[in-house]
Amino acid sequence: MKRIAILGSTGSIGSSTLKVIRRHPDRFKAVALAANSNIDELLLQVKEFSPESVCVIDEKAAARFALRIKNKGIKLYPGKQGLKELISCTGIDRMVLAITGSSALEPLLTAIERKIDVALANKEALVMAGSIIMGKARRHNVRILPIDSEQSAIWQCLAKEDKRALKRIYLTASGGPFRKTSRSLFKKIELKQVLKHPRWNMGRKITVDSATLMNKGFELLEAMALFDLSSDKVSILIHPEAICHSMVEFNDGVVMAQLSATDMRIPIQYALTFPDRLESGFSGIDFCALKSLNFEKPDFKKFPCLGLSLKAARMLGTMPAVLNAANEIAVNEFLAGNLRFFLIPDIVRTVMNRHKNIINPSLAQILAADAWAKQQTAAVIGKL
Amino acid sequence: MKRIAILGSTGSIGSSTLKVIRRHPDRFKAVALAANSNIDELLLQVKEFSPESVCVIDEKAAARFALRIKNKGIKLYPGKQGLKELISCTGIDRMVLAITGSSALEPLLTAIERKIDVALANKEALVMAGSIIMGKARRHNVRILPIDSEQSAIWQCLAKEDKRALKRIYLTASGGPFRKTSRSLFKKIELKQVLKHPRWNMGRKITVDSATLMNKGFELLEAMALFDLSSDKVSILIHPEAICHSMVEFNDGVVMAQLSATDMRIPIQYALTFPDRLESGFSGIDFCALKSLNFEKPDFKKFPCLGLSLKAARMLGTMPAVLNAANEIAVNEFLAGNLRFFLIPDIVRTVMNRHKNIINPSLAQILAADAWAKQQTAAVIGKL
Repeated sequence: MKRIAILGSTGSIGSSTLKVIRRHPDRFKAVALAANSNIDELLLQVKEFSPESVCVIDEKAAARFALRIKNKGIKLYPGKQGLKELISCTGIDRMVLAITGSSALEPLLTAIERKIDVALANKEALVMAGSIIMGKARRHNVRILPIDSEQSAIWQCLAKEDKRALKRIYLTASGGPFRKTSRSLFKKIELKQVLKHPRWNMGRKITVDSATLMNKGFELLEAMALFDLSSDKVSILIHPEAICHSMVEFNDGVVMAQLSATDMRIPIQYALTFPDRLESGFSGIDFCALKSLNFEKPDFKKFPCLGLSLKAARMLGTMPAVLNAANEIAVNEFLAGNLRFFLIPDIVRTVMNRHKNIINPSLAQILAADAWAKQQTAAVIGKL
Repeated sequence: MKRIAILGSTGSIGSSTLKVIRRHPDRFKAVALAANSNIDELLLQVKEFSPESVCVIDEKAAARFALRIKNKGIKLYPGKQGLKELISCTGIDRMVLAITGSSALEPLLTAIERKIDVALANKEALVMAGSIIMGKARRHNVRILPIDSEQSAIWQCLAKEDKRALKRIYLTASGGPFRKTSRSLFKKIELKQVLKHPRWNMGRKITVDSATLMNKGFELLEAMALFDLSSDKVSILIHPEAICHSMVEFNDGVVMAQLSATDMRIPIQYALTFPDRLESGFSGIDFCALKSLNFEKPDFKKFPCLGLSLKAARMLGTMPAVLNAANEIAVNEFLAGNLRFFLIPDIVRTVMNRHKNIINPSLAQILAADAWAKQQTAAVIGKL
């Protein structure tokens, strides 16, 4: 029985993780749940899964949660400090980290220090501080198991191959809802169009990032960190069916590809069961019904976030953190109705251009760049 | 330095194997070459690669070869008995078995007894006596490394996965030159059309088998033997581009696929380098130029050999040997201009229907079924 903690249990990845655990009660036990503020959902989860420990990160929501919780045997850990204690004290075999944004960085580093293998759904932590996180994981002999479908695909393609034989990664992208939208129409794109992703049902922030293709840029940085690659070893490839989740080319000319239905439960379960596989309830792919898998070049003009992330990937240092922070604020403002969709890349570019990159930064320097970029982005948007 | 023997060195697979060895002279040495009767080509190969041992299987050709060979330091092994001695006496690390037809069976069993890992290009031996060969290989702790591109793909997809997680294999088929030919036109098909395969440049026998799709039926039987599967775990899938060489579906719904250029040097090299990979000179796949990978159901009506091989795959016993032998004779007669293309499956079916299947046969029973089927097939064709 693997003891699983889920950080971000009420979000999209969190609830999918609980579906996987519900399917395999003989294999997994959800011993710890943490959510930001959705206490209604969290109370339902607690009732069903009876975790040993629960954290509500938002302090006010935590106080309300404490009044409403019926099961007095459950340990409550309120706030960010509580989250750290929950990670340290619960006895976790594998931690699913599904908190979005840069606030996942601290709990990730805590888990690594506690030698807990992390199934990582959050992208931003690796984007901001990839080399610091992976270096720390190596030193503590901790595994970072990707949940992101593309990274999981790369991981499965690499299998036990000798990394020296790796020649290139094809990071596939569905192209998002605006793949076929003419560039001239981008100025008219509205929030509700953005939130209708053709292939994946995901959280709001990542759905916007998928529409700008910034998500793919983050995955480029994520893959570089997870698999220790330079930016020139990763090619982004548009694949509208989103059936092939990424591919790896080896030095003998062989390409290995991983394909599956577009449901996050598949990579989540793999991150929990690795090195084994378990029956998931998903059948494979009906290739005859599907008929074809299509591939095309990404359009860097229509999706400037691709070029911005490639720039950050080449520069590294604090620039990826600035890319991430500027994007996070810009997307939040877009979701709040305060920014037009097509302006997201312009805002990010402006903030990146103002940043003095620091090579081989400390964590403190990364966090400072993150804070600086967030404040700058807010200021840039405020002046529009 | 791996000491390689090539049985069938002057054929298509043999000469491709020598190209691989030529590319990696620091890794591989061709220590033994064996050919049936093409002594002109064999003399050129001996001159370039200076093997320690050479076998000419055809006794008359062997006598002529002995008169022409310049390098007197090379050991000559004439005839079938000589081939057995060559395998036993040369000190071989890995043997490439690229003799076509059922005559590969004896040298294969000899190699296994001598504990030599075999890179196997021949299909017929596994089709005839799959369980005997694989059982013997297991007992002698010998590896059978597939060279066939489809089997190599399956092998690479399985990698170090737990076999219990395997759910199904998708054996891909280009569909051959007559995929789009109307069934009503099959009676008019001529030899020269058959020998123009759209994707692979291969020997004549296998090119005919690719046109009838009997080749895919053999691969079904081959996969069952190599990976210890029942026939219901293998699905044949038409994939005209022949870029994806096969796929494996696991119990969690994940499908792993292997893709590469259509050149036999890639799977040959992998069978020589396994478990490593080596630079091959082949680049990967230009997915943007390729645009799409297509899949469709095979047409069992147009290609009756598929149904015949599936029948043999379900019955097992001596029936696959009969399928193979009847096909071998029918194809030879077709290649000699003595049989029309569309009659090949009819001949095979007639002989299969006359056969009394023996379950769990001995090798002697298999060889007897092979001889019986060959004689029967010749008789059936003679009476046309």
